Amino acid sequence: QAKCAAIAENKIFTNTIIGLIIFNAIIVGFETYPAISNQFPSIIYWLDTLLLAVFTIEIIIRLIGSSSLTAFFKSPWNVFDFIIISASFVFLGSSYIMVLRILRVLRVLRAISIIPSLRKMVNALLLTIPSMGTIMILLGLFFYVYAVIGTTLFASISPEYFGSLHRTLLTLFQVITLESWASGVMYPILEQDPSSWWYFVTFILIGAFVIINLFVGVVVNNVEE
Amino acid sequence: QAKCAAIAENKIFTNTIIGLIIFNAIIVGFETYPAISNQFPSIIYWLDTLLLAVFTIEIIIRLIGSSSLTAFFKSPWNVFDFIIISASFVFLGSSYIMVLRILRVLRVLRAISIIPSLRKMVNALLLTIPSMGTIMILLGLFFYVYAVIGTTLFASISPEYFGSLHRTLLTLFQVITLESWASGVMYPILEQDPSSWWYFVTFILIGAFVIINLFVGVVVNNVEE
Amino acid sequence: QAKCAAIAENKIFTNTIIGLIIFNAIIVGFETYPAISNQFPSIIYWLDTLLLAVFTIEIIIRLIGSSSLTAFFKSPWNVFDFIIISASFVFLGSSYIMVLRILRVLRVLRAISIIPSLRKMVNALLLTIPSMGTIMILLGLFFYVYAVIGTTLFASISPEYFGSLHRTLLTLFQVITLESWASGVMYPILEQDPSSWWYFVTFILIGAFVIINLFVGVVVNNVEE
Amino acid sequence: QAKCAAIAENKIFTNTIIGLIIFNAIIVGFETYPAISNQFPSIIYWLDTLLLAVFTIEIIIRLIGSSSLTAFFKSPWNVFDFIIISASFVFLGSSYIMVLRILRVLRVLRAISIIPSLRKMVNALLLTIPSMGTIMILLGLFFYVYAVIGTTLFASISPEYFGSLHRTLLTLFQVITLESWASGVMYPILEQDPSSWWYFVTFILIGAFVIINLFVGVVVNNVEE
Ligand code: NA
Ligand code: NA
Repeated sequence: QAKCAAIAENKIFTNTIIGLIIFNAIIVGFETYPAISNQFPSIIYWLDTLLLAVFTIEIIIRLIGSSSLTAFFKSPWNVFDFIIISASFVFLGSSYIMVLRILRVLRVLRAISIIPSLRKMVNALLLTIPSMGTIMILLGLFFYVYAVIGTTLFASISPEYFGSLHRTLLTLFQVITLESWASGVMYPILEQDPSSWWYFVTFILIGAFVIINLFVGVVVNNVEE
Repeated sequence: QAKCAAIAENKIFTNTIIGLIIFNAIIVGFETYPAISNQFPSIIYWLDTLLLAVFTIEIIIRLIGSSSLTAFFKSPWNVFDFIIISASFVFLGSSYIMVLRILRVLRVLRAISIIPSLRKMVNALLLTIPSMGTIMILLGLFFYVYAVIGTTLFASISPEYFGSLHRTLLTLFQVITLESWASGVMYPILEQDPSSWWYFVTFILIGAFVIINLFVGVVVNNVEE
Repeated sequence: QAKCAAIAENKIFTNTIIGLIIFNAIIVGFETYPAISNQFPSIIYWLDTLLLAVFTIEIIIRLIGSSSLTAFFKSPWNVFDFIIISASFVFLGSSYIMVLRILRVLRVLRAISIIPSLRKMVNALLLTIPSMGTIMILLGLFFYVYAVIGTTLFASISPEYFGSLHRTLLTLFQVITLESWASGVMYPILEQDPSSWWYFVTFILIGAFVIINLFVGVVVNNVEE
Repeated sequence: QAKCAAIAENKIFTNTIIGLIIFNAIIVGFETYPAISNQFPSIIYWLDTLLLAVFTIEIIIRLIGSSSLTAFFKSPWNVFDFIIISASFVFLGSSYIMVLRILRVLRVLRAISIIPSLRKMVNALLLTIPSMGTIMILLGLFFYVYAVIGTTLFASISPEYFGSLHRTLLTLFQVITLESWASGVMYPILEQDPSSWWYFVTFILIGAFVIINLFVGVVVNNVEE
């Protein structure tokens, strides 16, 4: 166990894994080009199996090296690594090629769990989320109320944007990003219901106001720290 | 009266109301799907009447529980709750189905008046509005002057965007959100009046400058607190 | 002179002028509706002449009331008021109806010079401009260099967006507001010159970086004060 | 050597060079108008050669004036000046007219290396880049993973946007600027794969979250200084 712990903390070991993750990233990149993936299918398959084997051995070493199973799975990053690798085994040999490919890509995200500076950064980013909790609930409530109103009022006029509650929620997300909210979404509705502008204008004004305050909160929180 | 006050402050009572508001939200969500609302019209009607009854009793309890009528209506949240519920009675049995539906959705907003953290957050957000007063008047003045100029200059060239003062105000709102301001609004006008770019460029530059200062003011205000 | 100074600082006098400016704003608003301006052309003309007369008397009173001509014209707001009113006389009776109308709208901006809180706010906004001086020159340089490169490379491929240096500058302004930069401007060029993406991507990245730092500077400046 | 150093630091010398850079900027501007560049081709050619000669002499003076070659090339701005001017000689007389023109435009950027306030500003801007290092790597990782997933999933449905990994990276840049992400990119894909909205919504939410934190970091860094 002490040996495995020593290996897991060895710089050469970590750097090799980082190197292999980068190599893994390059391979999944090349795989997206049919010209390459069709010409060397066996090489890519072979390299991929090899990488999976190495990553599996790496996790086993780190698992043995840790004081206990509970200690290992306490770190959410270890859980993340374990899920990504074990999921590859679950789907191994299956015909869900898309799922396998996406699992291979997600292995690239292991760079975050291996490189300390990236892990610290992501931890810091994730820590800002709880402080946004209440305002996110408020934003959710606001979106939901506008979505129900929008679906009730415009479902028959503009079924492609307001046809159902889930479609309206997607449309409202588009509107809050200000993407074609007027030219694409509002004007066709305005032609049939000339007073419907209040729906879009109030949604954007209130939404922008709440989101800006969300950002301001994050900035102020950061300045205080 | 003391009994009602005790009930109104009881945790179980409040949590029940929160639960019913969430239930109300789910129902109005389902109602937007015609497949569901057409299959179970009587169940939805029955549930809705029940919810209205419970919410009415809740308000009456809180009304009795408060030291006086004035004390109750001093809180704007109580006024909000009272209006939402009493409006449901005004339109009860009327054929304004849309209005009734929207009133049912607005009841979901009662979550803000019931859940303390949400109420605090909204109060904090509303408190930032007065500090933006002067800059909002300035922004209004700026919009109005540009709207009159735009209508005067472009009403005949581009009636769909600048046909009347209220239409121009809506177009200027679209322009300040940068939505299709060039491809949709400016280029068709530019073809007929090649010098009209100054109108859009100065509007966006001044508008962005004022709005950014509005945000900066809010941020600085928040940092100071 | 002392009498005029007393009148100019009288609250009733100032409030009357503010009221007349609001009245002037309402009239220019109504004037944009042909249905109204065509039905009562003489009333509008009469009201307009009256307003001009009152504003002229007001300026004369304030001019006499100030200690000296130099003292009066030292304040840029007085210069602004004087230009707006005297320009109305220059074009009086001329057939440049558009110019006259726009001058009438600009009189609404006199609200800023009359209402102290608005004047303070605009003064504060204008004071932030000098601190942005260097970064504005940098931004101008950056725009100019990209405009010359863009015109050189794309003038023949996309004459509607890059046909001439001034057209390219307008297009770059559109691109930096992110309005249809890809769908409208880049994709048609990309079809003919597949490597031209670097021009747009670097322009947006550098431009956004510089503009964000411009804003950051304004925020930091404000926080320090 | 002392004489050259004296000249290089002379105010008149520096101002003359600044003047010539502005003159150079005006010429490259005029050159983009075919009506002008075709009418006076020899004048432009002659002026251009003269400017190149003066700029070359200037650099030689500054090179001789500096204590040593290493001291001269230690300043990245001197390296920048040297490359811009020497590249003009490399391509002198070649038929790469476009390259020559762009080199002439880039000479305008020498204004940054000559004018102290601009140089300071750009140095300050460049200094903020290292502090964004880790978050930029994170952003790159995030873009790469989404690009591979996007190409894997949508290459056959939407080849114009997701046909190859490099095309997808450009599309994701467009999406993160919120330009036509819904109307242009998502809706055509949504028609064939109705569940693909998660790809765009999560990309925008995570991307916006990371980029906002990038900005917040820059602001906080600046406030601390
Ligand atoms: Na946009
Ligand atoms: Na757009």
